[in-house]
Amino acid sequence: MDIAALRAANPDHWTKAAAIRALTLDAVHAANSGHSGMPMGMADVATVLFEKHLKFDAAAPEWPDRDRFILSAGHGSMLLYSLLYLTGNPDITLEEIRNFRQWGAKTAGHPENFLASGIETTTGPLGQGISNAVGFAMAEEMLRARFGRKLVDHYTYVIAGDGCLMEGVSHEAIGIAGRQALGKLIVFWDHNSITIDGKVDLSDRTDQVKRFRASGWQVLEIDGHDPAAIDAAITTARKSRKPSMIACKTHIALGHAAQDTSKGHGALTDPDQLVAAKQAYGWPHGPFEVPGDVKSAWETIGARGAAERESWNARLGETSERRQKEFARIFAGEAPKSLSARIKALKKQVSEEKPKVATRKSSEMVLEVVNPIMPETVGGSADLSGSNNTRSGDMSVFDVDNRKGRYVHWGIREHGMAAAMNGMALHGGIRPYGGTFMCFTDYARPAMRLAALMKVPSVFVMTHDSIGLGEDGPTHQPVEHLAISRATPNTWVFRPCDTVETAEAWELALRSTDTPSVLSLTRQGVPTLRHEHKNKNLTEQGAYVLADATGKRQAILIATGSEVSVAMKAREMLEAEGIGTRVVSMPCMELFAAQDDAYRKRVLPGGPVRVGVEAAIRQGWDRWLLGQGGREQKAGFVGMDSFGASAPAETLFEKFGITAEAVAQKVKSLL
Amino acid sequence: MDIAALRAANPDHWTKAAAIRALTLDAVHAANSGHSGMPMGMADVATVLFEKHLKFDAAAPEWPDRDRFILSAGHGSMLLYSLLYLTGNPDITLEEIRNFRQWGAKTAGHPENFLASGIETTTGPLGQGISNAVGFAMAEEMLRARFGRKLVDHYTYVIAGDGCLMEGVSHEAIGIAGRQALGKLIVFWDHNSITIDGKVDLSDRTDQVKRFRASGWQVLEIDGHDPAAIDAAITTARKSRKPSMIACKTHIALGHAAQDTSKGHGALTDPDQLVAAKQAYGWPHGPFEVPGDVKSAWETIGARGAAERESWNARLGETSERRQKEFARIFAGEAPKSLSARIKALKKQVSEEKPKVATRKSSEMVLEVVNPIMPETVGGSADLSGSNNTRSGDMSVFDVDNRKGRYVHWGIREHGMAAAMNGMALHGGIRPYGGTFMCFTDYARPAMRLAALMKVPSVFVMTHDSIGLGEDGPTHQPVEHLAISRATPNTWVFRPCDTVETAEAWELALRSTDTPSVLSLTRQGVPTLRHEHKNKNLTEQGAYVLADATGKRQAILIATGSEVSVAMKAREMLEAEGIGTRVVSMPCMELFAAQDDAYRKRVLPGGPVRVGVEAAIRQGWDRWLLGQGGREQKAGFVGMDSFGASAPAETLFEKFGITAEAVAQKVKSLL
Repeated sequence: MDIAALRAANPDHWTKAAAIRALTLDAVHAANSGHSGMPMGMADVATVLFEKHLKFDAAAPEWPDRDRFILSAGHGSMLLYSLLYLTGNPDITLEEIRNFRQWGAKTAGHPENFLASGIETTTGPLGQGISNAVGFAMAEEMLRARFGRKLVDHYTYVIAGDGCLMEGVSHEAIGIAGRQALGKLIVFWDHNSITIDGKVDLSDRTDQVKRFRASGWQVLEIDGHDPAAIDAAITTARKSRKPSMIACKTHIALGHAAQDTSKGHGALTDPDQLVAAKQAYGWPHGPFEVPGDVKSAWETIGARGAAERESWNARLGETSERRQKEFARIFAGEAPKSLSARIKALKKQVSEEKPKVATRKSSEMVLEVVNPIMPETVGGSADLSGSNNTRSGDMSVFDVDNRKGRYVHWGIREHGMAAAMNGMALHGGIRPYGGTFMCFTDYARPAMRLAALMKVPSVFVMTHDSIGLGEDGPTHQPVEHLAISRATPNTWVFRPCDTVETAEAWELALRSTDTPSVLSLTRQGVPTLRHEHKNKNLTEQGAYVLADATGKRQAILIATGSEVSVAMKAREMLEAEGIGTRVVSMPCMELFAAQDDAYRKRVLPGGPVRVGVEAAIRQGWDRWLLGQGGREQKAGFVGMDSFGASAPAETLFEKFGITAEAVAQKVKSLL
Repeated sequence: MDIAALRAANPDHWTKAAAIRALTLDAVHAANSGHSGMPMGMADVATVLFEKHLKFDAAAPEWPDRDRFILSAGHGSMLLYSLLYLTGNPDITLEEIRNFRQWGAKTAGHPENFLASGIETTTGPLGQGISNAVGFAMAEEMLRARFGRKLVDHYTYVIAGDGCLMEGVSHEAIGIAGRQALGKLIVFWDHNSITIDGKVDLSDRTDQVKRFRASGWQVLEIDGHDPAAIDAAITTARKSRKPSMIACKTHIALGHAAQDTSKGHGALTDPDQLVAAKQAYGWPHGPFEVPGDVKSAWETIGARGAAERESWNARLGETSERRQKEFARIFAGEAPKSLSARIKALKKQVSEEKPKVATRKSSEMVLEVVNPIMPETVGGSADLSGSNNTRSGDMSVFDVDNRKGRYVHWGIREHGMAAAMNGMALHGGIRPYGGTFMCFTDYARPAMRLAALMKVPSVFVMTHDSIGLGEDGPTHQPVEHLAISRATPNTWVFRPCDTVETAEAWELALRSTDTPSVLSLTRQGVPTLRHEHKNKNLTEQGAYVLADATGKRQAILIATGSEVSVAMKAREMLEAEGIGTRVVSMPCMELFAAQDDAYRKRVLPGGPVRVGVEAAIRQGWDRWLLGQGGREQKAGFVGMDSFGASAPAETLFEKFGITAEAVAQKVKSLL
């Protein structure tokens, strides 16, 4: 690569881009770790995008109508940090750049959305950013349809690498974007032909251009180091009614001894090579030094959107107060005040009517009440709408000619759905929920983990949550998925026992601002167990006494979901034999763990035999069965210790021994 | 669809295919659940494949050189069961067909490989079958290169639906197959334009023909109900040097009132409609009744390959005895006799030399010893070869022009890698292992679960297994993934503390015939702790006393992996203060759980304070901390209760409080 020629051709551009490259080299050198090559390869694209197209105001990085810039190739985090610092983002100071990858720094190894403004999403696990971006672009379409283009009208730009495009989730994302004709989604492919193991060709020869076109995208091909070509391609892409992919032929680690090699992907820390690269760039400045004129040029770029933002503010001010409040509310992620009353009314109604329904149906009953008063909810399912019961009557289907639609047919794409949901939530103004079978938590898992890490309140509606799904068999029967979801930090796993608890769980999920929820719901019908209406949301405490022992308390049965009714039957049997038995319903272990010790001890006093009942594995239960007891706590568990099987549900509960009889027997064997 | 015209055009073919359709209708009707439409739509393709092309002998379904037939659209299981029954498979009798989806039947809701011969893999979770198939086809290439085409020369056929092709993993699979030019892989796409939610068009408009071509496949397009076209397409596909996709335009639920509708996807149980469909088929027979001539025609097909199998047997008999034994050994999944001696020698050497290395490096040391004596091992990595240390010096890279290569550059495709590994193991003759970062267990998870369910001994080499990976931050730091892997039934999760335990873990993983293993390995160096050589594999018991208290035993520290050395340091500190402290190394909880009570109590006697130490969440530990104790067991845990952070590893251990000092302090606070 003839660096001198590049410099000479566009000196102003070159210098601005060189600042990114130099900062990257310095930060990685100081940290002695990181990924130098990607920022060095994509600095030209990013510079043109920020200088000529990206609508943003560095001083107000949270401005709702900004264009979104998503670094899907998150290992190249210094590209983003450099851009934020150079343009004047208030969070990413030079000090932060110096502390790249150090304890407490906002400049983490991979971009983390919750550490600094200007970081739209957390990336690093490949393929997530581009899939989040689909959700960002859908959110923009939905909100534009709702509020009009005077308030919502922006683009979503993505930089993705070969890793992102090899990951399966990219296929799902690209398919959704193509189907939905997300014309304001523009993806730059950092086509540098290098992966960690060597040339991309070692493992992949997919023709990405043809692949994207096959999924309904516009594709443009350019030299990723030619500013005019970059500019022209973005201009063309912005006009497209299809999503656009701009294939940018680049040189990883441009200008460094490691250019165009897999070594260039990682941390380039050799001091001599660093000096040589900077020399090639015509960058005589010291480490972390950006000359005033260059910084000032970048800050001018950072301030470019200020006027636009002000006129947007003025337009917002011209709309009705009610509309302004609504806009503010949904972007703050606040539930409407009426939610609580609606939930209480539903609880009251069902505790009187006592329907026997599957909790997936209960969930639909809640959605019928909630969706009409929360226009920010967007529902969907990975091709199991009728099974997940995720579509309420008022929701029309989101489509190219119905951008006001709030229901998404995601297709058989659990992972893409979950990642796009996260993107919607991160965009703001949308509260997404989506359904699949509990067992396919597995497929959505990488995005579900990121929801927790990113602190976004996506709601995962996971139905058919045990062997209770019956004949479909062990490939479709979760046994370990409650444990998996509970293992994830910052995740609420709700397993409600009836419609009342389902309503309470939904209320908590919809009030959450920074914790995602997993709703574990049955396929099979369960009775209403909460007969006595209480305004208080009992699920909020995670566990509570559903029925106490009538005489001396000899046993405590702790159960969740469909097994609470099993425990209640077992209690009847035990009480009939004079064995005083308490039943504790535990719809959310995480919330129970968060209660104070006194409450937890009131619910689970030491002494009585404890038996846990859940049609799933025991892992995660010992804390409640063995912990907090006095003396030696006698305890047992009735659940699964293997995969399930294919047979009618009742047969399975019988054969796997999850019955009231088995629970009563377990208690007696422990007494 | 003019059924009469189809019947008239090819009456013999029609009748055979009608048997599949009728059995499907009857079985689903009897079970009152299942998926009728897919078998009814693809019966013609399957009939032609089995009648004209598939190399198999129904009487010997395990014949190693048979063609493989994989039903990726596993919900259409009655297609497979019908074919097995009709052709005379010994396991799938008419009784089994009648018991479709009932307790104890081999005819589970979705095909389960371990229930009956002739079921090559377990499908149902969409996209898995086609991805397994890539592994099957790779295994065939590898074994053909090793043993010659006289012994290994067969095709892998797949039926995949729209669901399979929408799932992200299909992208990974297609990319690998195209890159590796797996010419003997032939995929039939059941192009029926219907999903559960409605028309495919609702969620996807991908041009699958262009998509497959973009990934290097040959694509043929046919009418999936025209036997001559099907036959011709297969003939063409078999000659291709590229993998082939045959797009079969079909009608879901052909001939039924629900034809071409999403209702047709599910269980068609209406008795009148059933009768009408059979009438249209010209099938006047009673439920489950297949007339003798039709059954006999199918059995002739089932016996078609007998002669070919016999001549194959003869060819096998002509090779050297040594070669025959080797062939039998690898297909039985038996490790060579020399494995044990090699492992012992390595253990002896390292317990003397006491290297301080990362356990990922230890793993490489084991592979350097093992791979040369186990030609059936196939290694690989999802583009992290240098980090996962998965390639031993003797392994060349598998490629189009090096089919003897045993190392696979999978690309950035964790899920596709894991699914293809499972396919290799299922094919037989190959023992696959593959690496990625432990955190990306998430991406591979659906296939890892299936390895466990399917009872295949795939080995997942998961390095960078804690915050010890340092600066890459929380997106790359597992905290819940040990719990997730341990939650999965039939999975061994090894977290070795040093090179000796790593060697022991590998030995167990390589001897396993029906349990997959997860090796959780460090990025960072750890000292050798097993100084005294023992021939016995201590890891086989799951946990053991690494160092006992010198005086009165007051505390037991239980630790795994990199934290065993932390526990050893804490022990030193406590012993210095006169607090007798035992250290238990617990490299495999599952194997420890499988020991008898007496052994477990010897290792973990009740009484002394117990502290668990693992740089991960506590879930799964309470069993060992709180269980089995006498009186009230005092216990604590030193580990993680949140996501990690980006900083140098030592800083992170310090900040998150996973240090010898913290462990000693925890013990003292409990005493």
